[in-house]
Amino acid sequence: MAESETQTRHEVTDSHGSDIYGEDGAIRSSFLATVGAAIADRDVLFLRSHVGGLHPSELGHILEVLQPEQRQALVQLLGEDFNFAALTEVDEAIRLQIVDALPNDQIAEGVQELDSDDAVYILEDLDQEDQEEILAKLPFTERIRLRRSLEYPEESAGRRMQTEFVAVPPFWTIGQTIDYMREDHDLPDHFSQVFVIDPTFRLLGAIALDRVLRTGRNVKVEDIMHETRHAIPATMDQEEAAQIFEQYDLLSAAVVDENERLVGVLTIDDVVDVIQAEAEEDLMRMGGVGDEELSDSVIATSRSRVPWLLVNLFTAFLSASVIGLFEATIQEMVALAVLMPIVASMGGNAATQTMTVTVRAIATRDIDIYNASRVIRREAIIGLLNGLIFAVLIGLVAGGWFHNPQLGGIIAAAMVINMLAAALAGILIPLLLHRFGADPAIASSVFVTTVTDVTGFLAFLGLATWWFGVHP
Amino acid sequence: MAESETQTRHEVTDSHGSDIYGEDGAIRSSFLATVGAAIADRDVLFLRSHVGGLHPSELGHILEVLQPEQRQALVQLLGEDFNFAALTEVDEAIRLQIVDALPNDQIAEGVQELDSDDAVYILEDLDQEDQEEILAKLPFTERIRLRRSLEYPEESAGRRMQTEFVAVPPFWTIGQTIDYMREDHDLPDHFSQVFVIDPTFRLLGAIALDRVLRTGRNVKVEDIMHETRHAIPATMDQEEAAQIFEQYDLLSAAVVDENERLVGVLTIDDVVDVIQAEAEEDLMRMGGVGDEELSDSVIATSRSRVPWLLVNLFTAFLSASVIGLFEATIQEMVALAVLMPIVASMGGNAATQTMTVTVRAIATRDIDIYNASRVIRREAIIGLLNGLIFAVLIGLVAGGWFHNPQLGGIIAAAMVINMLAAALAGILIPLLLHRFGADPAIASSVFVTTVTDVTGFLAFLGLATWWFGVHP
Repeated sequence: MAESETQTRHEVTDSHGSDIYGEDGAIRSSFLATVGAAIADRDVLFLRSHVGGLHPSELGHILEVLQPEQRQALVQLLGEDFNFAALTEVDEAIRLQIVDALPNDQIAEGVQELDSDDAVYILEDLDQEDQEEILAKLPFTERIRLRRSLEYPEESAGRRMQTEFVAVPPFWTIGQTIDYMREDHDLPDHFSQVFVIDPTFRLLGAIALDRVLRTGRNVKVEDIMHETRHAIPATMDQEEAAQIFEQYDLLSAAVVDENERLVGVLTIDDVVDVIQAEAEEDLMRMGGVGDEELSDSVIATSRSRVPWLLVNLFTAFLSASVIGLFEATIQEMVALAVLMPIVASMGGNAATQTMTVTVRAIATRDIDIYNASRVIRREAIIGLLNGLIFAVLIGLVAGGWFHNPQLGGIIAAAMVINMLAAALAGILIPLLLHRFGADPAIASSVFVTTVTDVTGFLAFLGLATWWFGVHP
Repeated sequence: MAESETQTRHEVTDSHGSDIYGEDGAIRSSFLATVGAAIADRDVLFLRSHVGGLHPSELGHILEVLQPEQRQALVQLLGEDFNFAALTEVDEAIRLQIVDALPNDQIAEGVQELDSDDAVYILEDLDQEDQEEILAKLPFTERIRLRRSLEYPEESAGRRMQTEFVAVPPFWTIGQTIDYMREDHDLPDHFSQVFVIDPTFRLLGAIALDRVLRTGRNVKVEDIMHETRHAIPATMDQEEAAQIFEQYDLLSAAVVDENERLVGVLTIDDVVDVIQAEAEEDLMRMGGVGDEELSDSVIATSRSRVPWLLVNLFTAFLSASVIGLFEATIQEMVALAVLMPIVASMGGNAATQTMTVTVRAIATRDIDIYNASRVIRREAIIGLLNGLIFAVLIGLVAGGWFHNPQLGGIIAAAMVINMLAAALAGILIPLLLHRFGADPAIASSVFVTTVTDVTGFLAFLGLATWWFGVHP
């Protein structure tokens, strides 16, 4: 009676999963309000039937928009119906907050239900002690598998792989293989190829499932298997593995240990996450921010942004000291102070354009030793060309503004110089950073704009001092 | 005899495909030199055996690093052995250059060998006339299929889908389905699910291949098919389709027309390309460049960068005119001209940090109506906090440099004001642009740095004028 009451209290017009999203792609506010009310009323029945059955990514999305205390309550109320896979879909800070509040027993129960790659994803962020306690509560095979994954370096293929896979000996027929798959109930939830191994688990080849289905029952596995050219060493960096997936359009790839033994399978869905994360990393680094997330604390975020601002402060003082050299000239002709930021700003923008293209080209390997000199020459010409266009424009406007054609000529000349410097800095600095093993995205902006600020002020104020005969 | 001679002239130590890449991930220069020599010598035999058999992405990579005239020669020499799929792996400019030089007959032959999605990818960039001529040379079914894809809007799911798929009626058994796949030779090259349709091609459901393999021969298709919750309308934008793939970890999805009829299948490999392109687009737009590629001409590149530089020129003059208001103050105290770029530069950097995080959060839908006000408050606090830290630093250094503690105080106050403005501009401008349907990445930088330049100059020079009693 009490239950049917609670059930009717919170109603959603349509329980179809995808309908939790509105037209704009955000979660419907009506749905969220109902969930919030159900959490406040501890309406377990409603939550289990309308939230517990959602796709993990949908549940993860809901967790992200809830208030912290609502998150804990929801996980608690769902109990066994809480799908731990949702934790792989939320920001790290939220995941840790939820997991830290759960007893290790419940975490052990929860990760047991997951594919090993998802389980590792959740376990790897915990501290050593909790990790060990949770592993100890798992069945033997699970424990061995997860521990092996966790022993590989962070961000390696071994960490991201799934340790469940289907493997058969080469002398089996396709018929035997299909029968095995029909009978064995310990298969992975999803798989797209069958691996072929020898008795010591050494990888011999693979067969895509569509190939299995198209082949007669009597054909032998070894006759249709293809050599796995793209087996991935478990210690390979996940970014490198992602590049192989992308280049060869793989759906899944065997992961092998140092003895060429099959230890797991890397699947495209994990790789998509890696690709996205890597592209995001470039963007964030060029913007001078680390891998911060909106759910990080204010103090943590503030602190993570300070180093970049400090470097910028230092280079800003460097530019200022260049201006300082020309104090006497500025005092005689204040128009210079008014105009000088224009030269620096245009150079900074042109350099950013070139640098953006260069950083991206390095990341996608579109720039290499074969075309580097061609690309550098190309950027220099573009810089010169755009420099000339804007020199004419700025010269006319500035000369007219201050009724001083000579000043117009000087700013035009400074502009050409700075736009050329911008193009060269924009391409050479990322290339050099990459050459010496640094990430071209992380440090390019600050170096590049320093070059254009210093060159811009030096060229403009220097030319003015020389032409108008003021001695600094 | 002549042939065996040519064959021995160009030797590669190992013909294994992946070995064309060196340790650094670039194509080995020795391999490239050999290919170049073989092209020069028109050594067809060598090229067919060592280049013709490469993976399309490898062949594409080689085409990209060759000189333009070498590219044409290579395609010509390979003749029928040239795999047109390689054209889907190169920059648009290179693709057009190669295709434009080929007779339409050869293009028709080449695209016939491809999956329909790859064929559309090559055809869609050609002009209407060539497209029609090539389509006319194709067999009826191919022509109908490709024309249908080409009729969908650019960058839609219908353009990216593959029109080859496996579909069976619901009343078939798994045994019948497997037998059909064993016998029919017109199946797609690769597929990961079997679709279930009614006689009018309306989509009823789907079965993943691993499910087919795990199920007994006598089970009916309709009993194990799952409802396809994520069928994608052919007119849906490819980016939206990619988000569905990502959220639900799909490997492939049915594409349906306006009558819910199955018209094709969208696969994860195409989606990976979309995800990558979209992430790249954000990066490029924030850097003030369009979708330029290294293979574009100098003139085209220069022209595509001018609009952004023009906008920047305009805003730079706006900032300059703010400085112009304070000419009298600067003349009395040149130190202001020396220090003012520091205030503007720090604000610009802080704003870029906030803006980068915001643009990314909007793209990944991490920011929405539920947390917008929370995030705005958070950024304002971070801006104020970092503003205070750097105010103290800059105040001390500037005051010491010019032996003027009051000047130090003034620059410190201006810094706090500008860092707060930077934080607010960095978050509010992208949010507003997004709210009004504009891409937050494309226009944010220029607006945001205008705010910080103007605020920085106004706050610093204005406070100085007020404090030191100079009247502008």
